Amino acid sequence: MTLVVGVDIGGTKTSAGLVDAHGTLQAARTRATPASAGPAAVIAAAVELVRELGLGGVAAVGVGSAGVIDAERGLVVSATDAIAGWAGTDLRGELSRQLGLPVAVVNDVHAHALGEHWIGAAAGRRDVLLVAVGTGVGASLVLGGTVRHGAHWTAGHAGHLPSPFARDLPCPCGGRGHLEAIASGPALLAEYRRRGGTGAARPAELAEGGDRLAIAVLTEGAAALGSAIGGLVNLVDPEIVVVGGGVANSGALWWQAMRQAAAAEVLPALRAVPIEPAALGSEAALVGAARLAMEVAS
Amino acid sequence: MTLVVGVDIGGTKTSAGLVDAHGTLQAARTRATPASAGPAAVIAAAVELVRELGLGGVAAVGVGSAGVIDAERGLVVSATDAIAGWAGTDLRGELSRQLGLPVAVVNDVHAHALGEHWIGAAAGRRDVLLVAVGTGVGASLVLGGTVRHGAHWTAGHAGHLPSPFARDLPCPCGGRGHLEAIASGPALLAEYRRRGGTGAARPAELAEGGDRLAIAVLTEGAAALGSAIGGLVNLVDPEIVVVGGGVANSGALWWQAMRQAAAAEVLPALRAVPIEPAALGSEAALVGAARLAMEVAS
Repeated sequence: MTLVVGVDIGGTKTSAGLVDAHGTLQAARTRATPASAGPAAVIAAAVELVRELGLGGVAAVGVGSAGVIDAERGLVVSATDAIAGWAGTDLRGELSRQLGLPVAVVNDVHAHALGEHWIGAAAGRRDVLLVAVGTGVGASLVLGGTVRHGAHWTAGHAGHLPSPFARDLPCPCGGRGHLEAIASGPALLAEYRRRGGTGAARPAELAEGGDRLAIAVLTEGAAALGSAIGGLVNLVDPEIVVVGGGVANSGALWWQAMRQAAAAEVLPALRAVPIEPAALGSEAALVGAARLAMEVAS
Repeated sequence: MTLVVGVDIGGTKTSAGLVDAHGTLQAARTRATPASAGPAAVIAAAVELVRELGLGGVAAVGVGSAGVIDAERGLVVSATDAIAGWAGTDLRGELSRQLGLPVAVVNDVHAHALGEHWIGAAAGRRDVLLVAVGTGVGASLVLGGTVRHGAHWTAGHAGHLPSPFARDLPCPCGGRGHLEAIASGPALLAEYRRRGGTGAARPAELAEGGDRLAIAVLTEGAAALGSAIGGLVNLVDPEIVVVGGGVANSGALWWQAMRQAAAAEVLPALRAVPIEPAALGSEAALVGAARLAMEVAS
């Protein structure tokens, strides 16, 4: 059976896993990303992880990476400073040269979606809208197994939809009133503090403990996300919506507020479109990257 | 050269045109849609128009129709009551039986987008987001010449995105605060009346005449649309956005407010994505339907 390695390069950590043709993760390794040391160090760390897994029988490597990725040329088009100097990196060229294997590269949110589409919450579905809410809010549209990359490799920036919930709040992109400014993890914390909250934990944890302000902030962020998802269902008409990322682990209160807000927007004909939690957890991007590797496996 | 007929069936009028392989309209006929007389009468009227054009040398017929259309089976899945009893009509079956030709059927907004993609404002572009704003607000995503229909043939309902401009205004879909509730033609008029406007013409005309309230209402509707378009550019990353429909003929004031609001939302990497007026006017859907007919031409 074809064996590939999937790699997930994020600003904090890098993971690699040996994956078979069924999507089964046979072994995995994780280490801190040497993000401040620059692209060469980040790539070297990824290469080391892949080698630790053993290259015997491995046919290809797939990489999901932070940043806007040109999947055709295997380049990092642009990126935040989560990884120093990441923009412009020839990710595929470097990795395939150092590993001597075919390499496929994709943005990490798209990798997450490919993973869920392959063996996760969207397995067996043709069209998937994945929404990932954590440090930011991102999305990926997988149509018939193929990621919608966009004309400038920038598709999926759902965090930068205008949101009726986001007032005039500043967004990390420089805009105002965007979904990400009210629904992301950092946005929930900022809103909690802005409204006088003094609890030391994340709003999701404080909400579980009964903190009324945290509950209000958390459910409002969830409603903002759900409202946007409802609108996107009307636009995209996916078979299923899968919601992942750290904030999606905020518990029943968050899910209830999110789903209720989505239901309020959705057209009657689309009310049955399911909105389900991601199933693959932190390994999703790695598995999705492996799925992509299967396509370039020699 | 292959000749086909394109047909555009709307709630008010039905048009048919003879179109060659370059997209050139060689002849056209229009008549009122007998909308209240039911599907058989509407189809008979369309058949008559097509026969008036002459079937000699015609290889296929393409139809753009109001309603949610199952393009695979050629059926009207659902529709408003603009055409009585339209839902459930076997549009392709009836037309191909009566005309003895291959028939392709698609929703009229998608047909509009196919027309602009073929020989209109988006000619030569791979990926197009078309937004049509008139009685309602609709959209169509054409990716590499193929319409994104959606898992339930319902994709493109951009009018039912939540809008920060739409407050809690009721939307024709039954929801509240949707883009269509503030940006469509009827919504502009309703808002003008709600705010005390007494002018007898449409807000766009009154605005041109200097009516301050009409100017405020018109530019606010335009900004609502532009803001949504900006967010959709971030999500979809199209090569070009084409804006058509009757409200898009509202003049420079409307276009300026719309483009300015879009620019405020768009990510830096996508600032160069053009937002252009539709080029084909009232013949767009007919031409797009003809484009589709080329694909089934025998």
